[in-house]
Amino acid sequence: MRTVEVPLGNRSYKIEVGRELLPKLGHYCRKLGLGQRCAIISDSNVAKHYGKAAAESLAKAGFDSIPVTIPAGEKSKSLRFVSDCYDQLAAHRLERKSFVVALGGGVVGDLAGFVAATYLRGIPFVQIPTTLLAQVDSSVGGKVGVNLPAGKNLVGAFYQPRLVLCDLSTLDSLPEREFSAGLAEVIKYGIIYDAELFQMLEKDLEKLLRREPKTLASVVARCCEIKADVVGQDETESGLRAILNFGHTIGHGLEAISRYGKYLHGEAISIGQVAAARLSSKLLGFPQNDAERIKTLFERSGLPVSVRLTRTQRTALFDALRLDKKVLAGEIKFVLAREIGKVEFGIKVPNNEIEAMLNE
Amino acid sequence: MRTVEVPLGNRSYKIEVGRELLPKLGHYCRKLGLGQRCAIISDSNVAKHYGKAAAESLAKAGFDSIPVTIPAGEKSKSLRFVSDCYDQLAAHRLERKSFVVALGGGVVGDLAGFVAATYLRGIPFVQIPTTLLAQVDSSVGGKVGVNLPAGKNLVGAFYQPRLVLCDLSTLDSLPEREFSAGLAEVIKYGIIYDAELFQMLEKDLEKLLRREPKTLASVVARCCEIKADVVGQDETESGLRAILNFGHTIGHGLEAISRYGKYLHGEAISIGQVAAARLSSKLLGFPQNDAERIKTLFERSGLPVSVRLTRTQRTALFDALRLDKKVLAGEIKFVLAREIGKVEFGIKVPNNEIEAMLNE
Repeated sequence: MRTVEVPLGNRSYKIEVGRELLPKLGHYCRKLGLGQRCAIISDSNVAKHYGKAAAESLAKAGFDSIPVTIPAGEKSKSLRFVSDCYDQLAAHRLERKSFVVALGGGVVGDLAGFVAATYLRGIPFVQIPTTLLAQVDSSVGGKVGVNLPAGKNLVGAFYQPRLVLCDLSTLDSLPEREFSAGLAEVIKYGIIYDAELFQMLEKDLEKLLRREPKTLASVVARCCEIKADVVGQDETESGLRAILNFGHTIGHGLEAISRYGKYLHGEAISIGQVAAARLSSKLLGFPQNDAERIKTLFERSGLPVSVRLTRTQRTALFDALRLDKKVLAGEIKFVLAREIGKVEFGIKVPNNEIEAMLNE
Repeated sequence: MRTVEVPLGNRSYKIEVGRELLPKLGHYCRKLGLGQRCAIISDSNVAKHYGKAAAESLAKAGFDSIPVTIPAGEKSKSLRFVSDCYDQLAAHRLERKSFVVALGGGVVGDLAGFVAATYLRGIPFVQIPTTLLAQVDSSVGGKVGVNLPAGKNLVGAFYQPRLVLCDLSTLDSLPEREFSAGLAEVIKYGIIYDAELFQMLEKDLEKLLRREPKTLASVVARCCEIKADVVGQDETESGLRAILNFGHTIGHGLEAISRYGKYLHGEAISIGQVAAARLSSKLLGFPQNDAERIKTLFERSGLPVSVRLTRTQRTALFDALRLDKKVLAGEIKFVLAREIGKVEFGIKVPNNEIEAMLNE
């Protein structure tokens, strides 16, 4: 097992990465000194597989848990389901020292985290990410929230979990499409922060796609380390943390115009990263050859790398970009790459360049 | 004009207390270096009186504001209206540096503050409280949030405004019942923190009820000072801040069982404080004579001091108490008084004492 520290002063916490961690959930919560009652927020798919194991582990350690289940899928990441969760927490009389366990992928983690951040003005929560994407990205760093009809993650908070348990065994049952979607964030860490990781992925991608335990453990832990490192330097995204959004401006836009239905998040940011790499070549002199390497690695991972848009869709996408949180004074800012392993944030891209990119 | 500092490190801010401050809103916002766009969240009553003045002041200083109006009344303090506000902020493309102006009483301030705390994971906001209660209490200290069907303020955040403008001129049009409700919080500060203020109120209550400008200014500023002092010592209510809840456990319960319709908040906590004073005499030896003085001062302020409950209502109230945020490990904790000007928090009150009190 590997432990990664997220260094945030009195809000610091640990990410445990290993197999068979779920049966130890109760033990870990006991060590944290949490209150008696808790809610396990999960989705209909994950609850079926792991809900019982989580509840049993908590019961064995003397906790009194209730299950709160939302429908699987990005469409549940809405205020409606936040409101449902609140009502269930209140009905079961969760108090200030009670806690929330977020058991599931990114949707569950973001929503359950937001519920924990705002119920009684904040109660503790523990993340148990069960998808690759959630393990390497969304469960770490305290960005929680939900979507609005107008755009993704437009409502939320910065709120850190007390613990993250990355149980790699839960990835055994992950559908291939979901696993690939997670690889989109893994590859991102290589592009933005770690050229060595990128090369290793080029070399060992097949092992990773086979979910070879050692490779998987070391890649997940490395991604968590990178994210912890970035978040530790800039928790609330006043600067550096923005690099984690590489490929996300276009990606979020694509998700918004398809109303969070067509693309998985990882698929949308795969397209977004390939577009950002191309834009980087045009504006920052990022080597075209490296843009090709990026495209190839996403393709080998089973991810989409381009999209054909109608004129109406292009207009809708452009509108969605302008609503992105990364917009400032009406200007759309991008994270672009200088070289693999090194990116810059806050780069203003003229509207005509964005339009040209969307027309490609 | 008086200025009160709320000392909270890099989240410190000023409360300006005086007449005719609303026309200077734009000027103040400019000094804070806020972004170009903003939303003035207000309710149907207040918007009618002051919406135009606020918008004009902002326009004069070069800001681009939109009005967002909710129906007047505690029933608007719900997730439904939070959701409406989000949609309007998104439709008008508010960005991270954009800001929210909360123009109104406690309901508007709490709701608008919560919207600001969570929209794009937090944008700046400015409080312009237009009721006495909001000026002396809810606009200061960063507790924001909304009610659930299950109870009051069960959802929220700690999120500090960037500025509070207490424009005393806005109290000129305040209905008598609302003014009295505000006095319930004013008297509370005397009971919990400042025996001198309590005596001054006993002496000068008539001046205050006439809204005599000098008396009003000095009382509002003193209350803000006390609140700033308490909040500065304990922002997130891990200890001392709990004293501000004197009379609120019963008060919140009464509001919940009447579904936030029958009582104004100030009226409910007037009843709650009189009950808490009586309980203090029984459990902490608080002088019965002082409990009488408290009751008399609330009565003179035009506030209710008791309530007759049916058996069903008593049960409902008891249930509501158990859901209060101040409950810990199932035990209901009270703030009780030792003497006027000095209270203690976190006092466990046995269920049978609570029942006896409810039966009185």
